[in-house]
Amino acid sequence: MNRAIRSRLDPNRQVTSPVVRWLSGDSTTSVDELVVEEPLEVRAQAARSGEEASLAVIMRTPGHDEELAAGFLYTEGLLAHRSELASLRTGIDVDGLPSENIMVATSTGDIDLVKRAQETGYTRLFAVNSSCGICGKNTVAAACSVLPPLSSSDFIVPVRLLYALPDQLRERQEVFASTGGLHAAALFDDHGALLGLREDVGRHNAVDKLIGRALLDGELPLRRRILLVSGRLSFEIVLKALAAGISIIAAVSAPSSLAVDLAGASGITIAAFLRGDHVNIYTHPERVSGE
Amino acid sequence: MNRAIRSRLDPNRQVTSPVVRWLSGDSTTSVDELVVEEPLEVRAQAARSGEEASLAVIMRTPGHDEELAAGFLYTEGLLAHRSELASLRTGIDVDGLPSENIMVATSTGDIDLVKRAQETGYTRLFAVNSSCGICGKNTVAAACSVLPPLSSSDFIVPVRLLYALPDQLRERQEVFASTGGLHAAALFDDHGALLGLREDVGRHNAVDKLIGRALLDGELPLRRRILLVSGRLSFEIVLKALAAGISIIAAVSAPSSLAVDLAGASGITIAAFLRGDHVNIYTHPERVSGE
Repeated sequence: MNRAIRSRLDPNRQVTSPVVRWLSGDSTTSVDELVVEEPLEVRAQAARSGEEASLAVIMRTPGHDEELAAGFLYTEGLLAHRSELASLRTGIDVDGLPSENIMVATSTGDIDLVKRAQETGYTRLFAVNSSCGICGKNTVAAACSVLPPLSSSDFIVPVRLLYALPDQLRERQEVFASTGGLHAAALFDDHGALLGLREDVGRHNAVDKLIGRALLDGELPLRRRILLVSGRLSFEIVLKALAAGISIIAAVSAPSSLAVDLAGASGITIAAFLRGDHVNIYTHPERVSGE
Repeated sequence: MNRAIRSRLDPNRQVTSPVVRWLSGDSTTSVDELVVEEPLEVRAQAARSGEEASLAVIMRTPGHDEELAAGFLYTEGLLAHRSELASLRTGIDVDGLPSENIMVATSTGDIDLVKRAQETGYTRLFAVNSSCGICGKNTVAAACSVLPPLSSSDFIVPVRLLYALPDQLRERQEVFASTGGLHAAALFDDHGALLGLREDVGRHNAVDKLIGRALLDGELPLRRRILLVSGRLSFEIVLKALAAGISIIAAVSAPSSLAVDLAGASGITIAAFLRGDHVNIYTHPERVSGE
């Protein structure tokens, strides 16, 4: 590795890069702002022995890292409630220096997050359940057996409230405009007011940061809240929303088959292809009215 | 779970969903095609004992599953060469029935994929290296210590060849047009001719499918090939390209900071924001000429 490369890999965060811009057959040299991607190691500290164990490494955009760690632990099923979490703090790396890329979660009482992670055979998609064949049906059933479906709908929103959500997201998106590289997720209340917005290179991270904030503030479950995601809607996003008790998920782009299956089975409304004054309701349309 | 929900979760793949379409204040009922998302379990079979162990569950769009499993095993560092793979076949689920959602990899000779996975502390991002602090710099260094950087450039392409790639991708994208829900990745030769295209709900999967195909065909490394991805460019995509020896990565949207860092350090050219007759070259611009 030569010196030029070394300096580019300085631990001080790089947010700009030299760039050669080609327009037709001509090139110019310039500097471009980049969306920052860095690893975050999530560790659990045993309440009794004080020993730390690594649970996961998440590639993320730095910022709101306590929220990300809390949301990740919660939506992965490793934390069941705010009260199980004693503290979240930055960790110490092997050189003995504090690192913003390490978050250490300490649980309360006898709760052992490391053991829990081992017992659940923790993956980003629940454990592979050896008692049934692997298929979308069983994946949805496994999710619903761990996370109770939402109760039926007393939360109804006018469709015009949905139409107004993407503009609010765009107005508040700060990083995307300059880099074009981020996913966004936002949480709205039952009047369509924006409560929080997070941006990240990983679409799951943006959702985990929102849910982590709510967990830390003791606001879960988020029954009368609407989650809006800037892109496509996958099974995993619906799973995270279900863990947080969110009733309505809106997306600017398309949902997947398994996202629709899980939302249908678990009582979540999916409102996708939300553009201008048009939206498609894939599941539980009873939560959307024309009024 | 009531019967209506049960029938929607039929293991026969659902590719349509009832949908309520709202346009302004009016709604109509219709049927919409969905991009299919299903779990794929990748298992390894011990060459001697014949026992199977689960390595990972990947949420993916069904199709090209042998390629996906092969590419995944290769880019995760669990397979070093085509010759280590004895066979890939569909697995048997707990009911004793063959399942298209299980792929079993059998290795040759004494190679034990399960042991390898355990030893590397396998994650989707290399092992957390306990000998160094966790940061982007170390993540890039760890990648480069495992995967040798590409040799310097005898592969140069005219910029007009790059401009022509996205149109070829769009012409050949089959599923996206009808569902809007898929990521695409394509491989081109040094004359800009499209060699392969894969679409998937997971952007990493589309890349793994391309690389898996090349592995199975004995065509790795892909030195004089261009990889085009339909969206953003993350660290992980660059890592997979590096594993396959791909020299140029083109992207329709933005690269992340860590994607640029890894490409810079490993000798890969990143050509991003590729739209019309415009492209930004972030790393190793010597591979792109105005001719």
